[in-house]
Amino acid sequence: MSFSALNLDELTAQRDRALRDYEALVQRGLSLDLTRGKPSGRQLDLASALLALPGGHTAADGTDCRNYGGLQGLPEIREMFGGLLQVPAGQLIAAGNSSLSLMHDSIVHALLGRVPGAERRWVEEPRIAFLCPVPGYDRHFALCERFGIELIAVPMTAEGPDMDVVERLVLEDPQVKGIWCVPKYSNPSGVSYSDETVRRLAAMPAAAPDFRIFWDNAYAVHHLTDTPVEIADLLALCAESGNPDRAFVFGSTSKITFSGGGVAFFGSSPANVAWLLGHMAKGTIGPDKINQLRHVEFLRDEDGVLEHMRRHRELIRPKFDAVDLILTKELGGTGLASWSNPAGGYFIGLDVLEGCARQVVSRAAEAGIALTPAGATHPYGDDPRDSTIRIAPTYPELDEVELAIAGLAVCVRLVGTEKLLEQAR
Amino acid sequence: MSFSALNLDELTAQRDRALRDYEALVQRGLSLDLTRGKPSGRQLDLASALLALPGGHTAADGTDCRNYGGLQGLPEIREMFGGLLQVPAGQLIAAGNSSLSLMHDSIVHALLGRVPGAERRWVEEPRIAFLCPVPGYDRHFALCERFGIELIAVPMTAEGPDMDVVERLVLEDPQVKGIWCVPKYSNPSGVSYSDETVRRLAAMPAAAPDFRIFWDNAYAVHHLTDTPVEIADLLALCAESGNPDRAFVFGSTSKITFSGGGVAFFGSSPANVAWLLGHMAKGTIGPDKINQLRHVEFLRDEDGVLEHMRRHRELIRPKFDAVDLILTKELGGTGLASWSNPAGGYFIGLDVLEGCARQVVSRAAEAGIALTPAGATHPYGDDPRDSTIRIAPTYPELDEVELAIAGLAVCVRLVGTEKLLEQAR
Repeated sequence: MSFSALNLDELTAQRDRALRDYEALVQRGLSLDLTRGKPSGRQLDLASALLALPGGHTAADGTDCRNYGGLQGLPEIREMFGGLLQVPAGQLIAAGNSSLSLMHDSIVHALLGRVPGAERRWVEEPRIAFLCPVPGYDRHFALCERFGIELIAVPMTAEGPDMDVVERLVLEDPQVKGIWCVPKYSNPSGVSYSDETVRRLAAMPAAAPDFRIFWDNAYAVHHLTDTPVEIADLLALCAESGNPDRAFVFGSTSKITFSGGGVAFFGSSPANVAWLLGHMAKGTIGPDKINQLRHVEFLRDEDGVLEHMRRHRELIRPKFDAVDLILTKELGGTGLASWSNPAGGYFIGLDVLEGCARQVVSRAAEAGIALTPAGATHPYGDDPRDSTIRIAPTYPELDEVELAIAGLAVCVRLVGTEKLLEQAR
Repeated sequence: MSFSALNLDELTAQRDRALRDYEALVQRGLSLDLTRGKPSGRQLDLASALLALPGGHTAADGTDCRNYGGLQGLPEIREMFGGLLQVPAGQLIAAGNSSLSLMHDSIVHALLGRVPGAERRWVEEPRIAFLCPVPGYDRHFALCERFGIELIAVPMTAEGPDMDVVERLVLEDPQVKGIWCVPKYSNPSGVSYSDETVRRLAAMPAAAPDFRIFWDNAYAVHHLTDTPVEIADLLALCAESGNPDRAFVFGSTSKITFSGGGVAFFGSSPANVAWLLGHMAKGTIGPDKINQLRHVEFLRDEDGVLEHMRRHRELIRPKFDAVDLILTKELGGTGLASWSNPAGGYFIGLDVLEGCARQVVSRAAEAGIALTPAGATHPYGDDPRDSTIRIAPTYPELDEVELAIAGLAVCVRLVGTEKLLEQAR
């Protein structure tokens, strides 16, 4: 029964029960961490064989991977990931260990060197703004803030960003130069973009001739079900729509092999790839090709990647299931919260009553349960409804996830009933 | 006997002999490459054991190196290289595979974020200039050119850059924000900076409060003799002189282990390190700690690094000796050329008669001997005396080096005698 339908006495009783549960929770002195989307040790163990690789040091074309050179990265790893990231291998760059670095560098080079189509360097613009579908990923926002790029929040729907809003802002404001997208199993809501959303993103008219979609396909192969989500091919749709240079595609093996020791990718139109390589050439003599070769030997091919991801799924699916089970048991029907049940990715989005998220996170912290700060999912750390909480269940062991979520549910019940009581008075 | 003392007949005879030798050289149809400072395959083989490392995945402090985090890099690799680079380990950052990237990023962050001491971001300055001791390293110059930074050439002496010129320019012009230095076994002349030069660099008054020394200590342990050159400790001298934030120190294992798969370092004052880490934190979640651990296991400690470098020396010293021997035999006493006999590093600087370097490189190319373009050692590719040629003898096998240098000597003789004839007429 929805708690909002309870009378004052019933609500007070529920609040008292929640308070007793919370006090008991604090007494337990837990120390649990649901903050970051990190693979667990057991997931990393799946790639242990990487540590003793590569067996050789020669690439398919005879390149000695130990020496300098090969700016675009090994052809064989670009072939392996081209299909998975929906980028032709010739238009894919295989770089260092961090796709966030490639996003950072793309912005730096657009600031300091004219991106194809631009009338001037972004640093010469009076103002630069990026659209940020919310809830979204805090590191995307922080990257923009560091360069003084204005963040404009756009609501997410079940099909991706609200395209009516996006189309209007991109058409009206020539200073809107970019949009952040996590198109598949999005961080943190788990939403995947519908084909129609992708089509509209590719085709919409933009006031800025140098408008870019930052397509962070971080969870391209990170499925949690037997029916993998396929998203539409943004790069192809941009080309078909006469906007060939609109998409910057990013991906990595950070949550496939080793989070600290993987390979990151940038894919785009031939013009954008030539632009980025031209700038990269001034700043490096080439990526770590040995690590790329190591990945080629270990993952073998596209099927090898998908097979490896099934082993990840076996380890993390039970954690996602546990979260849903416990939240349903503890909060189902109360109307105090709703949450996503994602088909992939690394996060569960938890929505609590308006004005309650910060308090829930703070109560949880007092009980030894660390959560991503409330608001982190929004530009400037400001969730105007103060209702979004991000749950990252992959890193802790299953029993820790269960303990943490049961505790979190107590916090939601306590803060929610207090809020309803306050409103009822 | 110096060719400049020959009469016209003798000179013509020498030119004719050189022409016959050159024609015979072209007939041989060689294909040799002395362009880049790359280790040879046999040098890379010295670090073969790296390919099967690390044996574990846990750092000394318990960090799982496979996962995210650890922005500053593993403490143990910073300890290992701190002494060798003359930077306290706490002030050293261990990053990705490229020190050039760290130089690039340092400039980017100074352009886009105020470096300690700066009145404004460099991108807001009307003009930025860097001093470039010449001959110097083309990639340093290219990096500046890409960002529109003006390059001002400063002559090198046997003790480093001409400090009278440096001190005057740095004192007079507040837009001079940096100087490029390869302080030990410098590229390409092999010169190491004297203690007095380092002391003056650290202590000289600068008009720009945000003046920086880009100290590319690329050849810190790359000795070719039994008496390793030790340079003065720039970072300490800067601190003692009241200019604690003046030095950016760079280094890497690119020419110690694998050129494409090593570890790069940035060292500086606590304020500069905090500044750079703050910006890096927006663009990455951390470096490839697995590769750092791999290097720790393989190189073990400072002595392990030095021992490993002795094995490199055994492989490359004969190539440097061959260059000197052949040049002495073919050109000694002719006055047509002089060359360095470096005590370390990767290059030999060859000086030919004024106005001859481009022609020598071009003649050599026609004979199948590839050299770094003449002028590459100077800003904007412009060597005003057109006399400097860079020889990189490490990559080819010894017999190839011998063939290439003998051929190069023929080119020098031909172009030199033609030049003298032209002047004599």
